[in-house]
Amino acid sequence: MSVTGIPQDGGAPVRAGVPEHGRVPKYYAVRIRLTELVDGLPEGRVLPTERELAERFGAARETVRQALRDLFLEGRLRRRGRGTVVAGPKLEQPLSLTSYTEGVRRQGRSPGRTLVDLRRWPCPAGLAAELDLAEGEPVWHMERVLWADDERVGLESTYVAVERAPRLDTDFDPDSSFYAYLREQAGDGFASADERLETVLATPREALLVGTPPALPMLLIHRLSRDAQGRPLERVRSLYRGDRFSFTTRLTAE
Amino acid sequence: MSVTGIPQDGGAPVRAGVPEHGRVPKYYAVRIRLTELVDGLPEGRVLPTERELAERFGAARETVRQALRDLFLEGRLRRRGRGTVVAGPKLEQPLSLTSYTEGVRRQGRSPGRTLVDLRRWPCPAGLAAELDLAEGEPVWHMERVLWADDERVGLESTYVAVERAPRLDTDFDPDSSFYAYLREQAGDGFASADERLETVLATPREALLVGTPPALPMLLIHRLSRDAQGRPLERVRSLYRGDRFSFTTRLTAE
Repeated sequence: MSVTGIPQDGGAPVRAGVPEHGRVPKYYAVRIRLTELVDGLPEGRVLPTERELAERFGAARETVRQALRDLFLEGRLRRRGRGTVVAGPKLEQPLSLTSYTEGVRRQGRSPGRTLVDLRRWPCPAGLAAELDLAEGEPVWHMERVLWADDERVGLESTYVAVERAPRLDTDFDPDSSFYAYLREQAGDGFASADERLETVLATPREALLVGTPPALPMLLIHRLSRDAQGRPLERVRSLYRGDRFSFTTRLTAE
Repeated sequence: MSVTGIPQDGGAPVRAGVPEHGRVPKYYAVRIRLTELVDGLPEGRVLPTERELAERFGAARETVRQALRDLFLEGRLRRRGRGTVVAGPKLEQPLSLTSYTEGVRRQGRSPGRTLVDLRRWPCPAGLAAELDLAEGEPVWHMERVLWADDERVGLESTYVAVERAPRLDTDFDPDSSFYAYLREQAGDGFASADERLETVLATPREALLVGTPPALPMLLIHRLSRDAQGRPLERVRSLYRGDRFSFTTRLTAE
């Protein structure tokens, strides 16, 4: 499917990705037909079985399976029970200081978080340098699975000095926004953050926690937030399912 | 390798990704040892052969190959001739109005662009709505491969009304910045842009043009730029190698 709908080179759209030189891999021809099929179906519609698709496309089941796998990885399809259904569009999460919770809610989805791990650690040297702490000073590590409606969509690790949130283990509801919590605590809040986005593959542990197929491309955001005085406040590592998320931003002239 | 160096659950770092429940896939144990090996080597160092690694790790060559594949996809390794070498860090490209050219140059790399395609098209309905044009109005489609030093790293498709850049085919050096070109042309420049980032798999055509292995996770940026009057100016689709690029941004309170 082309982003713009402009036909390329005699009708093949850009994203159909047929090489101009060289042959089209066999599975890719199946993938193009499968994409056309999915494009024409509404969200939630159950796809024909692998066997039926193989018959329809005159291809081996293994070939159909490979094409299906690509569409799963790109978030066009998802599993429901034992069947395969057409997925909805990716969630568009604004890159902003406000939290995951608020971003998801803005899209009419119901955000959730479940705690995987919360514990104190002596701050190691690398993190101490980033957070402007002394090595060995106590820091919290809080790890949470992120949900949108009934779907697990990500995994978030937050590191913050215990001094900044001394009662995190007793006061804080892990299913709520840490951003809002810090703002309430003594007026501490994020004033700015540096973020870095990249794509990585899910590790087996991550795939298990987020409930994704192994080696799914994920979007990883590294974040260092600062308070109004410019002091580092938290270090966050947020991992989002690449098949369920995109990130938006508005740029302006400096 | 952990982002922060904080040990998890008795010493296993977060990114090592060993599941807490369930068994570690065999190849993943090899991957962890391989990652440790790569972490200890300088950029450009040649890796032992598959056969040597299989012996060292007491694993099948197929298992070693699978672990190597992950490290290639994540950009930790790259090919050089027939060998495998330790890759340098990912390029950090700021999300900003200024172009690819300027972003790469800031990191001491030499940017380049080669033209794949430049032609006029009658604007299709979807693009016309986005660019605030009449359907059928002539638009340029310019497709360029992006280079950093001697490495192909991305693919960029730009759509702009012919009216906005009537002499694009004769005046413009495709190996230069389109941003700078538009600014020179009658003072037209970008004042703002909306961007959306996602991860997608390279299509065979894209893999061919960018010179990547098939199905490499890529970072795709959709962009709509506007001029100082708020009128849409260009629509861009930029695809970057996920193993070579990360994107940075600074967020501030609204």
